[in-house]
Amino acid sequence: MLHFENDYNKGAHPAILEALVETNGEGLSGYGTDFYSSRAATKIREATNCPQADITFLTGGTQTNQVVIDAMLASYEGVIAADTGHIATHEAGAIEFSGHKVLTLPHQEGKIAAAAVRQLLEDFYADGNHEHMVFPGMVYISHPTEYGTLYSKQELLELAKVCRDYQIPLFLDGARLGYGLAARSTDLDLPSIAALTDVFYIGGTKMGALMGEAVVFTKSNQPKHFTTIVKQHGALLAKGRLTGVQFDRFFTDDLYLQLGAHAIEMAEKLIALLEEKGYRFYLKSPTNQQFLLVTAEELEKLDRAGVCYGFWEKYDETYTIIRLATSWSTSQADMDALAQVL
Amino acid sequence: MLHFENDYNKGAHPAILEALVETNGEGLSGYGTDFYSSRAATKIREATNCPQADITFLTGGTQTNQVVIDAMLASYEGVIAADTGHIATHEAGAIEFSGHKVLTLPHQEGKIAAAAVRQLLEDFYADGNHEHMVFPGMVYISHPTEYGTLYSKQELLELAKVCRDYQIPLFLDGARLGYGLAARSTDLDLPSIAALTDVFYIGGTKMGALMGEAVVFTKSNQPKHFTTIVKQHGALLAKGRLTGVQFDRFFTDDLYLQLGAHAIEMAEKLIALLEEKGYRFYLKSPTNQQFLLVTAEELEKLDRAGVCYGFWEKYDETYTIIRLATSWSTSQADMDALAQVL
Amino acid sequence: MLHFENDYNKGAHPAILEALVETNGEGLSGYGTDFYSSRAATKIREATNCPQADITFLTGGTQTNQVVIDAMLASYEGVIAADTGHIATHEAGAIEFSGHKVLTLPHQEGKIAAAAVRQLLEDFYADGNHEHMVFPGMVYISHPTEYGTLYSKQELLELAKVCRDYQIPLFLDGARLGYGLAARSTDLDLPSIAALTDVFYIGGTKMGALMGEAVVFTKSNQPKHFTTIVKQHGALLAKGRLTGVQFDRFFTDDLYLQLGAHAIEMAEKLIALLEEKGYRFYLKSPTNQQFLLVTAEELEKLDRAGVCYGFWEKYDETYTIIRLATSWSTSQADMDALAQVL
Amino acid sequence: MLHFENDYNKGAHPAILEALVETNGEGLSGYGTDFYSSRAATKIREATNCPQADITFLTGGTQTNQVVIDAMLASYEGVIAADTGHIATHEAGAIEFSGHKVLTLPHQEGKIAAAAVRQLLEDFYADGNHEHMVFPGMVYISHPTEYGTLYSKQELLELAKVCRDYQIPLFLDGARLGYGLAARSTDLDLPSIAALTDVFYIGGTKMGALMGEAVVFTKSNQPKHFTTIVKQHGALLAKGRLTGVQFDRFFTDDLYLQLGAHAIEMAEKLIALLEEKGYRFYLKSPTNQQFLLVTAEELEKLDRAGVCYGFWEKYDETYTIIRLATSWSTSQADMDALAQVL
Repeated sequence: MLHFENDYNKGAHPAILEALVETNGEGLSGYGTDFYSSRAATKIREATNCPQADITFLTGGTQTNQVVIDAMLASYEGVIAADTGHIATHEAGAIEFSGHKVLTLPHQEGKIAAAAVRQLLEDFYADGNHEHMVFPGMVYISHPTEYGTLYSKQELLELAKVCRDYQIPLFLDGARLGYGLAARSTDLDLPSIAALTDVFYIGGTKMGALMGEAVVFTKSNQPKHFTTIVKQHGALLAKGRLTGVQFDRFFTDDLYLQLGAHAIEMAEKLIALLEEKGYRFYLKSPTNQQFLLVTAEELEKLDRAGVCYGFWEKYDETYTIIRLATSWSTSQADMDALAQVL
Repeated sequence: MLHFENDYNKGAHPAILEALVETNGEGLSGYGTDFYSSRAATKIREATNCPQADITFLTGGTQTNQVVIDAMLASYEGVIAADTGHIATHEAGAIEFSGHKVLTLPHQEGKIAAAAVRQLLEDFYADGNHEHMVFPGMVYISHPTEYGTLYSKQELLELAKVCRDYQIPLFLDGARLGYGLAARSTDLDLPSIAALTDVFYIGGTKMGALMGEAVVFTKSNQPKHFTTIVKQHGALLAKGRLTGVQFDRFFTDDLYLQLGAHAIEMAEKLIALLEEKGYRFYLKSPTNQQFLLVTAEELEKLDRAGVCYGFWEKYDETYTIIRLATSWSTSQADMDALAQVL
Repeated sequence: MLHFENDYNKGAHPAILEALVETNGEGLSGYGTDFYSSRAATKIREATNCPQADITFLTGGTQTNQVVIDAMLASYEGVIAADTGHIATHEAGAIEFSGHKVLTLPHQEGKIAAAAVRQLLEDFYADGNHEHMVFPGMVYISHPTEYGTLYSKQELLELAKVCRDYQIPLFLDGARLGYGLAARSTDLDLPSIAALTDVFYIGGTKMGALMGEAVVFTKSNQPKHFTTIVKQHGALLAKGRLTGVQFDRFFTDDLYLQLGAHAIEMAEKLIALLEEKGYRFYLKSPTNQQFLLVTAEELEKLDRAGVCYGFWEKYDETYTIIRLATSWSTSQADMDALAQVL
Repeated sequence: MLHFENDYNKGAHPAILEALVETNGEGLSGYGTDFYSSRAATKIREATNCPQADITFLTGGTQTNQVVIDAMLASYEGVIAADTGHIATHEAGAIEFSGHKVLTLPHQEGKIAAAAVRQLLEDFYADGNHEHMVFPGMVYISHPTEYGTLYSKQELLELAKVCRDYQIPLFLDGARLGYGLAARSTDLDLPSIAALTDVFYIGGTKMGALMGEAVVFTKSNQPKHFTTIVKQHGALLAKGRLTGVQFDRFFTDDLYLQLGAHAIEMAEKLIALLEEKGYRFYLKSPTNQQFLLVTAEELEKLDRAGVCYGFWEKYDETYTIIRLATSWSTSQADMDALAQVL
């Protein structure tokens, strides 16, 4: 089988696994108070050029979104997001489970524009009835988005400005952050993301960890007793070393950025290959996810050839949208095999 | 001042108040177990031609929506509603507070069509990823809607059919039900509403009660231990008689329907008057709420004349949408005074 | 029937009802922004000698406890209460429904002592593991308690001191506050309660209102956007006038205190009568609730005589604990009739 | 350092880690639908002699307790537990966060007796007021308990009988189940636990996994759409293989039971050593946790010697309770070194 269906179908990058093996026998304190979690946090503070950052390691994306959003919002507040945002669509109502509404805006290739956010906020406060409505209390964006697209520094700066004007935090979901950081066209790096957001996370699960996401509060704004909040959400690992060791390794010798760069290189080859073979793109993204419009016959061909893809949605009578994703684990051999069968 | 801003600016209908005064000295049991609550329930069972109905009296609309929806949904389910539905807009996130998402559909003059609901349900179950999404577990409609519009029997029948096909309940918010029942053009009466919905409520607050809404579970489907659920939501009145006596009176000598009819009569006069005076309608509804497009000068004139209206929203640079509402308490004298000043 | 089962079996005090009738025809703004709510708040500020107090009117006791506690606690905090406290026993989990644990202490005749609260707080912070536990974030007391007992000024002062030391609010549930204020033995009046607590409520439902409780935030500490929080809990009355008018009347010509004094006078007669007839007291309280130990024969005698009482609990094989309560509505005729039948 | 402070200070058992390494390169489907999760479930069905069991892998104990309890309880129900139960004390209110009260009973060495549970249930339903109270909807026990003690088959049978009588599920928290199964004195094995409980979990985190717990619904009673509920709680791992592979290995060649047996053997040596050295036991348990009463001098001696122990609580002026725990990772060398320093 050729695995292009997503970026989490393999285990962990060998170097990550090795770090786990090497540290396995050490007796360490629990719940994130261990040496490796601490050292990983130090390295992330350096990589983000954000010495005051508070860093917490969680297990998965939905959990991270739920914990961060619930911890930062007042009970009467909701979170602004694109209507395609992960929290709005594919988290089984995890945000609502914790009591908050997702206030959606129409997306543009997965993104929301500062102007639209500002309009929503202006309209809200202009409404004489707004005390009967959910207060917009945060802006959530994903970077890369669910469509693999990226915000530019200018766009992020404008979003940050709106948030500052209305004194609400800007939260960046970086489940696939490494692929965004490595994109050719991006002008956003870790320090600029740390500077422009109030909280963001560095995704591990989809970047070559067994699991794990690193939440970074960038403005000395980690909610009080955050460990207790994490515990209350059932999200505190007893063996915090598990995420600590992995992120310590990610941020040693630039592994995190390298894995991103590798996937981007593979994605470029994928695009070239697909173009060469005459595939129609629904959306060609600068990161590791590519969206195609395929016919029933083409789908059948892929199936027969053992190419795994992500079913996205029916486009019309003729076409279906599918996703092909490269990742930290995509090899040149995978690419060659794909070229062979297409 | 001429009160056309809403339908809850006066106290209670004199007959309602009188019933409270008359029964005031009686020693009655609490929490809705009193004689009057019981008799009111019996009368509502008769009026709805629904002998198996379970009836509970609550205090207000948002509370009723929250309690009913939370009681009927599984934790992983959300409620389908028009994007203009009260639960989606003006309840400060009361539905999300209880853990559920509101799944919105674009409205047509406040309504949603069966076809759109069916499409949403079909799409949901067709999505291979739907286990990661909020399950659509109920359909919520308001009748009259927030725009004063009404469902026809055919439309309600079709909605009921979709709900039956997908085995999810149909919930009708009847905060202004009396005005809907009395509309000239409606072919829906209490028995047909009881027959076609799984649960609905008969609004009291906006129909001439001090407060109170009567929830009617029509299909022997009242959630188990509903009293405890009501209590847990902080919604159980110690003096349940307060709602019991009022609804007992509403359903004596057809008072409820008469009050609706009176408001409709006044609304027709209001429409005629506004048309005569050359006002532009944004939406002319068959019930007690009328929506106008007015200029800044017209607004100023209304303000000066002491006409209270409901500000709805800015329409464009020139026009503002306002609401004028008649009610059970609008008098001919009010209408004459309004005619005078317009 | 002779109604001694509770203090909410009658409607409203005639003066309250009259105030509702008199103001019934006035067109007033909704959601608590009306003239009477405003005037009632002013009068309560005067009566409590607390000019900075923020006052909000809610509907019932459980609702008030839920809204106040949820609004004041952080998500990771619970509320300390007596194990007999209303929130711990008879509110169907309304506090847990809003996400908070009730941290119980053993009661002494319904009360908790400052020393026990301090011990709990000391133990909590001494526990190296407390980040994995629910933070004690508030102290809840009822005054009178569920057993009709009262805190002395000294006791309240000590509780206030503990709360100040640990910077957590002291919340006094005054569902029956008027009976406490009128007790012969009390040295607590409204100003001292306002001075010593951070938030408390003045109960209306059990004191002669149709319904309604007045929440008083005493230290300029009303949670931000409290109206929205109230709405989100389904607790905002459209016709806020209903509670406003009633509390405006309560605080006109000292009606509230007079109704309390009347019930206390009746309670003293009740105690004298019961003693004279040889009844055994389980707990003789200084307020309107008295608890008796009665045999099966005595119960049967009361039943035959049409005396309504509150069943409390089985005491042992021989005795049952029952409650007899006087109230604002207990008349001399009721007392005479009771004397007759005992 | 000598690690006796808990049973989760090391990484994973080498065989577990090896299984992860071996399967690391395989492309597998996500969210628990992979081959290894499926095979692990099959093996657990065999080991529990429970062919109809539904098995789900979660990440940690608090998360598992929250998800299972919230999924099985109705909104108005709470869970009965010992006052020392993990859910009652050290989960930061995770159960209340999901809306449910923990109804505590006094413990006996960490356990609750069937008779006490029955009494609580009888009292509840005998209370005329119980519709205003939290319904007891489940019984939670831990086995081994937080004190390392165990239920006998007879005790579990009696608890199961009470639960059946009242039609509420019996939930066994097996965070340390392997140590219980391996205890000399136990007459409970996996099949008998599966037969007597409605749901239980097989702890991995404290038994030699990196993380992970296997939830077993034993009576074809897994809540509908359980995957969605897990997702909504932020508890669904993208790489479900991570828990699948580990449990697949646990249940290959009886590894799980062997690791338990090893820890018990070490615990017996620990007890013998401590007795020999004259230590006072607060509680000598049949499993891997032992509780000592130590003086300040003894504590200092342990500290100096680099013996890590778990601080439990102050016992009195003289003594402190500490916990020494063996585990799957305790070696004979550890024991020898401890003997040396004591």
